Order: sequence, then C-alpha cells, then structure tokens
Amino acid sequence: VELRRIGTVRSPLTARKGAPRQADESAPPAVVELDAAYADALDGLRPGDAVELLTWLHEADRSVLRTRPRDDPQRPELGVFATRSPDRPNPIGLHTVQVTAVEGPVLRVAALEAIDGTPVLDLKPVLRSAR
Amino acid sequence: VELRRIGTVRSPLTARKGAPRQADESAPPAVVELDAAYADALDGLRPGDAVELLTWLHEADRSVLRTRPRDDPQRPELGVFATRSPDRPNPIGLHTVQVTAVEGPVLRVAALEAIDGTPVLDLKPVLRSAR
Repeated sequence: VELRRIGTVRSPLTARKGAPRQADESAPPAVVELDAAYADALDGLRPGDAVELLTWLHEADRSVLRTRPRDDPQRPELGVFATRSPDRPNPIGLHTVQVTAVEGPVLRVAALEAIDGTPVLDLKPVLRSAR
Repeated sequence: VELRRIGTVRSPLTARKGAPRQADESAPPAVVELDAAYADALDGLRPGDAVELLTWLHEADRSVLRTRPRDDPQRPELGVFATRSPDRPNPIGLHTVQVTAVEGPVLRVAALEAIDGTPVLDLKPVLRSAR
C-alpha cells in the first residue's frame, strides 16, 4: 500500500525534540499547504470547522513496538498501540485542528504540534457525535 | 511512503454497499486480528478502553476529489476533505472503537463499520482531552 503526499505542514516548529506532544500543550498556529491539484477537495471547509488532520510522521522509528511514556520515565513500558508515541509501525499522525482560514489550497489552523515539513495525508471533518 | 498491514478486520459485514457509515449506525461487533508479531505492541490496552483504529479502505476510489453526501443527493457536491467519504486520495479509515477484550494479538471491539478483510494500519488510545 502506497501513500501519496497531498501537501506539507509549515510551522515554526522545526525539531521533533522540544515540540509539544499535543496541540493543547502550547502548539503554535500552522499552515497546511496542499498541492494545487487538491484545492477542489477542500471545497466546503470553512473557518471555525474542526478537522482531523492525518500526517506522516517522517522522523519516526518504525521498528519500535514498546515504549516508556516520555513524561514519566518511572512508569513501566507499554505497547506502542497503548500510547500516542510517533514511533510505531505506521507512523500516521492524527491531529484535531481548528481551521482559521481557507485560501485556495492552503489551510490555516489554530494550533498544531507537527513539525515543519511533515507530509500531509488526509483531512476529515470531526464527527459531531464524537465530540 | 509505504504502509505495512499490521492486521485485518474480521466482521459479519462483507460488502461496502449496505455497510453502516459510522459505528453509531448499528455497526456490529468486530474482531481486530493483528499479526502475531504485534501482540507486544498491544500491551497496556484493556477492555473498556476507547481506541482510534486506523484502517486502509481498500475498496475506495482514490481518484475522487468531490462527492455528494450519500444520505442527501439534493445537497451540492463537496470536496472530499469536507466529508468522511471513503473515496479520497489516501483512503485511511478512522474509527473510534470500544475495546471489549484483548486476547494475545486479537482485539474484540463493540461496534465497527469497516468490512471483513479491511487492512489494519494503527491503533491509538483516544486522547482524554479530545473526548
């Protein structure tokens, strides 16, 4: 199965080390630049919408199956599927973001923990029943 | 970017046509069979946990950029990124599931709208702040 990069995250965050783990940990605003071919596929998204942004965490270590939570090295190891660690067999990032602007193939979002250059894979509206 | 199938959905749903679109639309219980190599990566998941299950929607049409909501053909077309349609450039399925049992590399989940044979890509615990 082959993924297609549909765009790229632009962010002031440039290094995985030091990046917040989740958007609610002081993540900065960011820009989601889609390739021009996908502008049409954004039609219907509006400022204020909540979106699930799927990315490819390109710096991840895909061989990791067990890990220790970064915020508490005293805790026992867990399987990676019981954590949100980026190191996992398929390092797909899942980020709930608030859209602040849509400008052609470019989205602005309020807070995003992904680093600059992260490949973008997909966008889905957040299900109302899941909120 | 190359994805690895880590497992397979086993479900009484066998055809995309007629399958519920979301788990809250009478989706049946299902089994998530991971390859034995990934059993360790489930360590820490327990019955009652809410998990984001990521799948590959293998029957999707990856060329679709605009679509009409299935439940209301009167509505105008939307870009696929403003919908949850499986037809999209990277047809990654995102399913919030409740774990009912963990048996080695096999998870049982309470309700899942994915069809039998759907490849599994990843599992992540639901963020508490997102619920």
